[in-house]
Amino acid sequence: MSHAQIGLIGLGTMGGMLALNIAEKGFDIAVFNRTTKVTRSFHETAGALAPKITPCESLEALVQAIAKPRAIILMVPAGEPVDEQIAALRPYLDADDLIIDAGNANFHDTERRAAEAEKQGPRFLGSGVSGGEEGARHGPAIMGGGARSDWDRVAPILNAIAAQFEGTPCAGFMGKGGSGHFVKAVHNGIEYADMQMIAETYGVMRDGMKLGATECGEIFAKWDEGVLKSYLIEISGKVARTADPETGAPMLDIILDRAGQKGTGRWTAIEAQHLAAPIPVIEAAVMARNLSSRLEARAEGEDLFGTGPEALPDGALSAEDLEHAMIAGKILCYAQGFELLRAANAPFDWALPLPEIALVWRDGCIIRSAMLDDMASALSDAPDRNLMFAPFFADLLKAHHGALRKVVSTAVAHGLAVPALSMALSYFDTMRTARGTANMIQGQRDFFGAHGFERTDREGKDFHGPWAM
Amino acid sequence: MSHAQIGLIGLGTMGGMLALNIAEKGFDIAVFNRTTKVTRSFHETAGALAPKITPCESLEALVQAIAKPRAIILMVPAGEPVDEQIAALRPYLDADDLIIDAGNANFHDTERRAAEAEKQGPRFLGSGVSGGEEGARHGPAIMGGGARSDWDRVAPILNAIAAQFEGTPCAGFMGKGGSGHFVKAVHNGIEYADMQMIAETYGVMRDGMKLGATECGEIFAKWDEGVLKSYLIEISGKVARTADPETGAPMLDIILDRAGQKGTGRWTAIEAQHLAAPIPVIEAAVMARNLSSRLEARAEGEDLFGTGPEALPDGALSAEDLEHAMIAGKILCYAQGFELLRAANAPFDWALPLPEIALVWRDGCIIRSAMLDDMASALSDAPDRNLMFAPFFADLLKAHHGALRKVVSTAVAHGLAVPALSMALSYFDTMRTARGTANMIQGQRDFFGAHGFERTDREGKDFHGPWAM
Repeated sequence: MSHAQIGLIGLGTMGGMLALNIAEKGFDIAVFNRTTKVTRSFHETAGALAPKITPCESLEALVQAIAKPRAIILMVPAGEPVDEQIAALRPYLDADDLIIDAGNANFHDTERRAAEAEKQGPRFLGSGVSGGEEGARHGPAIMGGGARSDWDRVAPILNAIAAQFEGTPCAGFMGKGGSGHFVKAVHNGIEYADMQMIAETYGVMRDGMKLGATECGEIFAKWDEGVLKSYLIEISGKVARTADPETGAPMLDIILDRAGQKGTGRWTAIEAQHLAAPIPVIEAAVMARNLSSRLEARAEGEDLFGTGPEALPDGALSAEDLEHAMIAGKILCYAQGFELLRAANAPFDWALPLPEIALVWRDGCIIRSAMLDDMASALSDAPDRNLMFAPFFADLLKAHHGALRKVVSTAVAHGLAVPALSMALSYFDTMRTARGTANMIQGQRDFFGAHGFERTDREGKDFHGPWAM
Repeated sequence: MSHAQIGLIGLGTMGGMLALNIAEKGFDIAVFNRTTKVTRSFHETAGALAPKITPCESLEALVQAIAKPRAIILMVPAGEPVDEQIAALRPYLDADDLIIDAGNANFHDTERRAAEAEKQGPRFLGSGVSGGEEGARHGPAIMGGGARSDWDRVAPILNAIAAQFEGTPCAGFMGKGGSGHFVKAVHNGIEYADMQMIAETYGVMRDGMKLGATECGEIFAKWDEGVLKSYLIEISGKVARTADPETGAPMLDIILDRAGQKGTGRWTAIEAQHLAAPIPVIEAAVMARNLSSRLEARAEGEDLFGTGPEALPDGALSAEDLEHAMIAGKILCYAQGFELLRAANAPFDWALPLPEIALVWRDGCIIRSAMLDDMASALSDAPDRNLMFAPFFADLLKAHHGALRKVVSTAVAHGLAVPALSMALSYFDTMRTARGTANMIQGQRDFFGAHGFERTDREGKDFHGPWAM
């Protein structure tokens, strides 16, 4: 009976898709869902894959169905359900069995669970999995964290089910503890930012250039043939060109402008603050999602303060300006994301493999894009260098920061909100200003709190001004 | 012997100043410092105030010197020292004695300590105190949290030592638990943002308009006579007009542009993310402080990407444009801060008295300003209304958002970094755009994750698009 090469608990959308993916790649898998009906129905509808799948109606049966040393993937909701599931499993498992949490855990929880597993067993891996339903079914990006030996044990399965970029699996070992889920969190933060910048360029086209949804979609489709080639640009083009079957109107014109969120962008912003790693484009994206929910206040604001975004003068901005601005914004956003990954190494005692992270993100995940291949090269050349300073990206920034500047300047002059693009530019301008303005802040701090300052003309840390109160 | 009306532990700079303030207002105070030498020296140098001060060389002596029921202020470093001090005091105190933590505690710690105090006594108040050395000595702003009856018991002393705005003490009871320290944290976040916006306008004057430090100082001094009248504008003017006694050069030109921080701005940003309350101007200020420390990278950026900020064309911006932009930016920043306060009420079961907070902040604290008096009025009229919609401030925004727009647009076109002003404007423009661009984000989310969306043309929450994958 103990023939399954792996087990999986939790046959929700993502769990079910992942189980089918595993079976399709030729592995025998035992599955269990708390509700037996779900387990049965999953097996009954698995078609040609059914023979590879052993449906189990109890945890005990699941454990018995898996060959030793066992590996069991958890796909249950993040948070307490994961702890409950681990506790329920523990009595049935041996010390060298392995639990893989492939849900959307907060990496702090994964750190804690990894530490608990060290003490009382069984083995534990926390794996970030990105790619939505489609990715889970046909190849997600997988970011694993835990013990290297545990990763190696299940790598043949995880590599097989992951997306393949030119033959290389988009799956990688990130390091110990919660590192895999941390990398996934940063991925999600970048996803928020990328989506927001696309929404902003769409807004400039719609409100500033008065283009219809279909025209916007054609522009995105064109971008998808160039430097910006990526899943998010591709689907933005498709979304914009899709009509509502009921009314015939463009879907975009029918969808309410109130964005949902599961909070992962917020968690990334919180960690970045803890690590003092600036990710302003992601923060701007989180802000935009939060404000999008204030529909009534925004309508009140438009009534009170005028007509909102204005049409731009003819020729003020071209689609090419927007494309180039988006290229610069995207580079700066990713540069911030990789800086955040780097900032986590010391406090968490990780050595996150930045080039490999870029490789893993090339396919399967939501932020997959052509540019990530170049980022992997740049990070291989110099893992500690901010991406904005890597020659390939520095050249792109030199070519396109003017467009970013033009777009932001023009948009804000006409009431078009572009917070994420604005913060990409602010980051760029701050990072290319040798003599900034924090001398004023240091003067103020010394004035009111005697905090002391450094001088430009000599060594030392605790100078004070002769302030007249 | 037990004649002192209050005790104070911790005679560091702030603690010492506060003790002198209390003595000067006519109260008998017993003081204790871990290092006896500090206690003695404090008493010996207290001059005419020495008779009001009882120096104590042990905790036991301190407790005995205070009349029952006792009140003891802690001014020890935030964090573990506070817990240690409470634990050390507890054996000597009665259940109805009161400990007042007047340090810079993280409000989560204050919540925990208040809960512990409920269980095992003695009584506990967490009080945010703002105003720096000068404020502590001659009148700070005080934000108390805990039990109303405990606050009332020590209010005569706290009201007496607080700053007085036209005869009204800048001291107030904020609510239970950590509410006082939370309000103080938001104060500090606003302080960061205000300072950053001033630094940005200084940067536009210095790099864009090529004004010298003294000229900038004169402009700030002029602003201090108008709508922007405030402590931070006042001291910015003084800082800018102060010369280095050694070199004769303006102090501002000698101070290194690397800003320090104690992390309180960061904590505010973290809480705001937890509460989904957008405070983008504060976030931009925290980002600017973080990036200011990257001196080498910024120099490398300037080498690589050109000369940094450019001079503006003659007449592109006037000092008046900057003043008006700053007025709009300041209103929007404070509006965000008060929104954050409001957002904390439900999760923490508080009812933060927003109008009273504005009143308390009118004097004594670092962000004291003329505008806070008008904010108190606006919040009294409609405590649940975003300040940007209050008639007085809406009129100012109508008059000045054009200037903010002009300043941001012009600055970013010329490479001048204005992240905080940019985010003030992005917030304004987002909040006055009835039809935003989050429909694109909802389209993307439904495309890749089947997250569903709302429609503009009918009720319901879980519509899906007919996406062609």
